[in-house]
Amino acid sequence: VTTGAQPGHFYAVGVGPGAPELLTVQATEVIRTADLLFAPRAETAPRSLALEAARPWVDGKEVIEHVYPMSRDLDRTLRCWSEVADRVVEVCNAGRSVAQITLGDPLIYSTSAYLLGLLEGRLPRERTHVIPGISAFQAAASRFGEPLLLQEDRLLLMPATDLRAVEEALDSCETLALYKAGPNFPALKELLTRRGLATESRAVFYVDQGDRETVVRDLSAVDPSFAQSAGYMATVIVHVGRRKWTR
Amino acid sequence: VTTGAQPGHFYAVGVGPGAPELLTVQATEVIRTADLLFAPRAETAPRSLALEAARPWVDGKEVIEHVYPMSRDLDRTLRCWSEVADRVVEVCNAGRSVAQITLGDPLIYSTSAYLLGLLEGRLPRERTHVIPGISAFQAAASRFGEPLLLQEDRLLLMPATDLRAVEEALDSCETLALYKAGPNFPALKELLTRRGLATESRAVFYVDQGDRETVVRDLSAVDPSFAQSAGYMATVIVHVGRRKWTR
Repeated sequence: VTTGAQPGHFYAVGVGPGAPELLTVQATEVIRTADLLFAPRAETAPRSLALEAARPWVDGKEVIEHVYPMSRDLDRTLRCWSEVADRVVEVCNAGRSVAQITLGDPLIYSTSAYLLGLLEGRLPRERTHVIPGISAFQAAASRFGEPLLLQEDRLLLMPATDLRAVEEALDSCETLALYKAGPNFPALKELLTRRGLATESRAVFYVDQGDRETVVRDLSAVDPSFAQSAGYMATVIVHVGRRKWTR
Repeated sequence: VTTGAQPGHFYAVGVGPGAPELLTVQATEVIRTADLLFAPRAETAPRSLALEAARPWVDGKEVIEHVYPMSRDLDRTLRCWSEVADRVVEVCNAGRSVAQITLGDPLIYSTSAYLLGLLEGRLPRERTHVIPGISAFQAAASRFGEPLLLQEDRLLLMPATDLRAVEEALDSCETLALYKAGPNFPALKELLTRRGLATESRAVFYVDQGDRETVVRDLSAVDPSFAQSAGYMATVIVHVGRRKWTR
């Protein structure tokens, strides 16, 4: 896809965490050349964050902003994406190219996942493409410059919703990257403090979202009510330890 | 860093898995504007893969290609990076900007990790930057278009060197991304076959390395000796299962 979007092809394009500078060259090319662009907007958000990130490349382009549900209602979620999928198939079959943009990486907790699933069997696989994007944990980690992984280390990426699963992971991983760390923040802070890991835990709220970004090096200094107000836009990185080189 | 490299600043720049199209806009800007570029080359490699990826932006630039050890000798590794660190500090203190490029992401199993560690305390933190890059597992996953993570799923990223750790992870994660899967490939294949997961495991060799890239959808179809010959340039993605939405 180095030459941009091809007629009749579909592209799930990761735009990274929010800043236009973190799109890949390939993402900018596909967005710039696609005939039609789908931009997701959470029903709780005033605008599409993915579209903001892609803004420098969408000038004069046909953009469909589609609202998707944030509730945990699988039927409603699939119904919403089913409408988008119908439209994508229709436009691709008419020989036009379509890109759907999504925050982060299209295969990591992304809106593209549903759409890709619903397109399976309806568009030939060779006309469906995924353009990777920088995920929030990478941008968050970059703020501290501390390696996530060395040598034999293991990194677990998961949401901070199930704290029992988080606690188990502390015993088998060297680094944890926790998404959606806002809602459960008080209990998460309590857990990491009890395990002596709070000062080895970093937090970034609204990573790469301009002035809203807040970077905290020591989790024990985070105000829990601020963290909760950030909701899903809170990433926590826990440095549990390091594995030694083994043979 | 949207305006490019600043005088006296150091940048660890992830260039992604290999194709110039997968650099971020920010990476291209920093590389283009840095006064001096360090490009790592493995002692076993004929050329710097990171430099190949950055090629379109290094024209006319001062580039130092430095060879680093691939052996598991921490003393030798640190001695090598220590020389680079001395040079970085010297050049930055003279008011010039320096970028070190690295394959993938600078914080994920990367050559930058040692350099960043050795620069700590020698360059002010506000003059040290990390520019994230697409990691190989993201490019590998993009070849199949299957979500790595949905909802409450957990992704474990680790090398396939310690197979006991891999086996344990199969019981607590929904997806595994295994790096360096070449050397231990026969035993890894045996493990995944025994667990009934071989057909749910994907493999990519030399991801994003042009014509050398080989994509295999079903791990049971991979020839073990081919996999071993790929050595560290082998990524395996195991789809263990899915977690349901929980409250």
